[in-house]
Amino acid sequence: MSHPHPELGPPPPLPAGALRIVALGGIGEIGRNMTVFEYEDRLLIVDCGVLFPETEQPGIDLILPDFEYIKDRMDDVEAVVLTHAHEDHIGAVPYLLRLRPDIPLVGSRLTLAFIESKLTEHRIQPVKHQVAENERHRFGPFECEFLAVNHSIPDALAVAIRTPAGLVLHTGDFKMDQLPMDGRLTDLGGFARLGAEGVDLLMSDSTNAEVPGFVTSEREIAPVIDDIFRTAEKRIIVACFASHVHRVQQVLDAAAKHGRKVALMGRSMVRNMGVARELGYLKVPAGLMVDSREIEDWPPEEAVLICTGSQGEPMAALSRMANRDHPIRVAEGDTVLLASSLVPGNETAVNKVINGLTRWGARVIHKGNARVHVSGHAPAGELLYVLNLTRPSNFMPVHGEWRHLRAHADLAVQSGVPRDHVVIAEDGVVVDLIDGRARIVGAVQAGYVYVDGLSVGGITDLALKDRRILGDEGFISIVVVVDSNTGKITGGPEIHARGSGIDGEAFDEVIPQLERALTEAAMDGVADVDQLRRVVRRTVGRWVNETYRRRPMIIPVVVEV
Amino acid sequence: MSHPHPELGPPPPLPAGALRIVALGGIGEIGRNMTVFEYEDRLLIVDCGVLFPETEQPGIDLILPDFEYIKDRMDDVEAVVLTHAHEDHIGAVPYLLRLRPDIPLVGSRLTLAFIESKLTEHRIQPVKHQVAENERHRFGPFECEFLAVNHSIPDALAVAIRTPAGLVLHTGDFKMDQLPMDGRLTDLGGFARLGAEGVDLLMSDSTNAEVPGFVTSEREIAPVIDDIFRTAEKRIIVACFASHVHRVQQVLDAAAKHGRKVALMGRSMVRNMGVARELGYLKVPAGLMVDSREIEDWPPEEAVLICTGSQGEPMAALSRMANRDHPIRVAEGDTVLLASSLVPGNETAVNKVINGLTRWGARVIHKGNARVHVSGHAPAGELLYVLNLTRPSNFMPVHGEWRHLRAHADLAVQSGVPRDHVVIAEDGVVVDLIDGRARIVGAVQAGYVYVDGLSVGGITDLALKDRRILGDEGFISIVVVVDSNTGKITGGPEIHARGSGIDGEAFDEVIPQLERALTEAAMDGVADVDQLRRVVRRTVGRWVNETYRRRPMIIPVVVEV
Repeated sequence: MSHPHPELGPPPPLPAGALRIVALGGIGEIGRNMTVFEYEDRLLIVDCGVLFPETEQPGIDLILPDFEYIKDRMDDVEAVVLTHAHEDHIGAVPYLLRLRPDIPLVGSRLTLAFIESKLTEHRIQPVKHQVAENERHRFGPFECEFLAVNHSIPDALAVAIRTPAGLVLHTGDFKMDQLPMDGRLTDLGGFARLGAEGVDLLMSDSTNAEVPGFVTSEREIAPVIDDIFRTAEKRIIVACFASHVHRVQQVLDAAAKHGRKVALMGRSMVRNMGVARELGYLKVPAGLMVDSREIEDWPPEEAVLICTGSQGEPMAALSRMANRDHPIRVAEGDTVLLASSLVPGNETAVNKVINGLTRWGARVIHKGNARVHVSGHAPAGELLYVLNLTRPSNFMPVHGEWRHLRAHADLAVQSGVPRDHVVIAEDGVVVDLIDGRARIVGAVQAGYVYVDGLSVGGITDLALKDRRILGDEGFISIVVVVDSNTGKITGGPEIHARGSGIDGEAFDEVIPQLERALTEAAMDGVADVDQLRRVVRRTVGRWVNETYRRRPMIIPVVVEV
Repeated sequence: MSHPHPELGPPPPLPAGALRIVALGGIGEIGRNMTVFEYEDRLLIVDCGVLFPETEQPGIDLILPDFEYIKDRMDDVEAVVLTHAHEDHIGAVPYLLRLRPDIPLVGSRLTLAFIESKLTEHRIQPVKHQVAENERHRFGPFECEFLAVNHSIPDALAVAIRTPAGLVLHTGDFKMDQLPMDGRLTDLGGFARLGAEGVDLLMSDSTNAEVPGFVTSEREIAPVIDDIFRTAEKRIIVACFASHVHRVQQVLDAAAKHGRKVALMGRSMVRNMGVARELGYLKVPAGLMVDSREIEDWPPEEAVLICTGSQGEPMAALSRMANRDHPIRVAEGDTVLLASSLVPGNETAVNKVINGLTRWGARVIHKGNARVHVSGHAPAGELLYVLNLTRPSNFMPVHGEWRHLRAHADLAVQSGVPRDHVVIAEDGVVVDLIDGRARIVGAVQAGYVYVDGLSVGGITDLALKDRRILGDEGFISIVVVVDSNTGKITGGPEIHARGSGIDGEAFDEVIPQLERALTEAAMDGVADVDQLRRVVRRTVGRWVNETYRRRPMIIPVVVEV
């Protein structure tokens, strides 16, 4: 197995007839999936998603792939293939299109409809190129064949990319539900056919590579939901992902059966389900839906709300209901159903929502106490099927953190891929497919690009480090006014502190020390503003550390008048 | 079921012959367990633990119970009963003893040894009162009977408290491993005997009330550990809780069997295992242990490290190994065993450690992929045994968040406790046991008390709110110097910002706006410092919002010279 080392340098020029593969996101993390394929100076991009921030990235809205590697080569891009319409695969498209608005977006009918309605909000009218399973489309030197895969959103595709360098199969996200609600199976026959032809490189979804066995069919959730509807006394509130058309369908069916009305809540939920309904992916019985405002006064025993917020997002309806900050007043007898996975990193927020709802008397049903969700990603048992059907010459696990990539690599070796033909890459690592062999040849820049408010990339890692210090310790700022002619101190020291837990009067202790230090500095002929700042910082820093054993950020401000 | 409402007022005076129960921690949360019993003006405290902070309490070291309710009544305290030596049951004792150093600490042999070695670090010499299972001891009006319970630390006790008001059984933390490593079973016979006598109130551990079934025996972990030792190629690194004597024993036994040497790492691990060894709770084969410095150069295939850090604590050895910031260089072939639970809230930190170690080539074995840990708390199946054996007249679930309390209350009702004899309380809620009936009668103060550095209680919720804002958005401070005689602005505006993602040059845009606003204010005759501050805040705040859609903290500083 080869894997990247810190000392990887820039890659060599790409030899003629070779295929270069660079993931700008999605390898070493779950999210912001984006892979760039290069052949004879032309580029094909597969997916362009966002990553959601963790507590280490405070205040950040979204994290994008770093476009630096391709930003001067936008005219070389033949197309962006979108495997499906989840945010971690399409979320960064609006930002990529700012660099070149007319890149063709390639995807299935539903995928293009979801991205288009999203782009409308960004006031972008994209160039679309609709494809479907079993179709072949050529984008420059890239001959793409699309295969149906089953996932937690309808109409997902895998893509086989043929160039003279060989055949690469990129699975996208997938699982292998054998009784899918829409009857659309992952195309194992197609995988087998490609395997017979010869897959030079398999790139396959690693998200659940650590999980043994097989997924439960989405169908098995329906009786559980039915049972919940049958026994619910009052209101039923269902929280799920805003793109999970099949889950919403199950809830609508149960509501119709049990004589309840349904309202949708949450902007993305309303938008996506509108699109899905219009295109026929979601079937809504006549007279079932009511307005979200109407539902507030509807008899609770006849009402169903479907909303976002299953990940504990603080501004979503569900969190606000848990905090009694929403027109819907959750009460004894209400049932709340979290019909979604628990995305790693959101555990604390979701726990808080469950406790809040329970405290008001609701029965909360979730993945932990009932079968109300199945994963959208193939676990180890299913991944082995794909490895065995495609029998790849080279294997590169994608879509996963290190633990998942490593587990998937081990599966590949067990299934017979030679150990030295397994490439564990990372974001930015350059893999060349030359003469049927995939190898790491270098690395390019692929850092985090932060979206915060209106700015993209304006927040640096240094600013985030400052935020972490400020968030843990607060700050103390000390203002001193100096006469620029005489060098004498004419005002201050005046101290302001926030979040340090040290308040106004406590500073009475350090001000004399500070005045003494400044007087001494003046006597020593210290007139330079930088030197004065150092004196202030040292004096206050030492006092805080000795008195409180804390390390707030210390901001000395010297104003010359 | 009765449960608290926000409008609960102060409790009425306690009637003669009645028992009052007030949890100052541990109900509505998992941690800082502390319950105060009052009878005829005398107090008995059961446990006095700490709660570990979450991301919502940035920069906080520990959270204590609020002693306000008892701080003026310290002389009424007969004793503090410590059910076992976990931090969430003993961690706040050093802080309580600051209020009165000679409160007798009541506990089993190991519990007192652990708390004593901890208090030595705080330079406190406690008054100890050692007890054991099957013993009765009287503390003022409180006749206490102790019963053996099995938990994830040796020598844990439940306590039955008899007063003329009735018999209260407090289980402490427990589970019901039927093949415990030390042969010490939870005393179900004793529980049955109390049940026959008549338990007026059962207070029982709710931590795992949502988990169906029964715990796996601690014994079943040994073969798994043995298997790991048998197949490990290089170094074995085991991370577990610093007080889990039986888990450490299993690792020592496996190391001895497989011819490896063991070193302990981490201050609390070394301290606790020293105590446990001295008292004979931990049996260390001769010649097995080596110094933690020696192990660095030991042949990896003969080395075992047992360390703290199983919860992803950033300063612990394990996190530092994952970040290559430790003399032990984890490498291909090493095995890391996380032999502990994953405490809610630590998921992200632990995931980061697992990914880091995997990236360096280690095989990481944890609860998620092997049976290397069993919980220390009784799940629903076992809780029903206790309810059925004790047949309490009243039931009050303790040690749990709302979701756990509620699940435990449901179990009690299912087992036959009348619904209106189940009391779901919260921290600070006052429950009186009068004439055999437990009822909520009011509430007292029981907020969070934060330890940060040397200060206890110095950090307020307001300071934490400031930290959260600073951590998410950073701050911008604007200094203006005003001549106190003329009211004219003589210096500034000078702007400093950290963590806002807006840097020096960007402010060139707002400074003219600011100067204009200040000039206008001067013309309008605004001389007051507060008014000038408002002008500055409004001008900069509006500019930041319109330009960046962000809300950093804005600190206007007006210095008069």
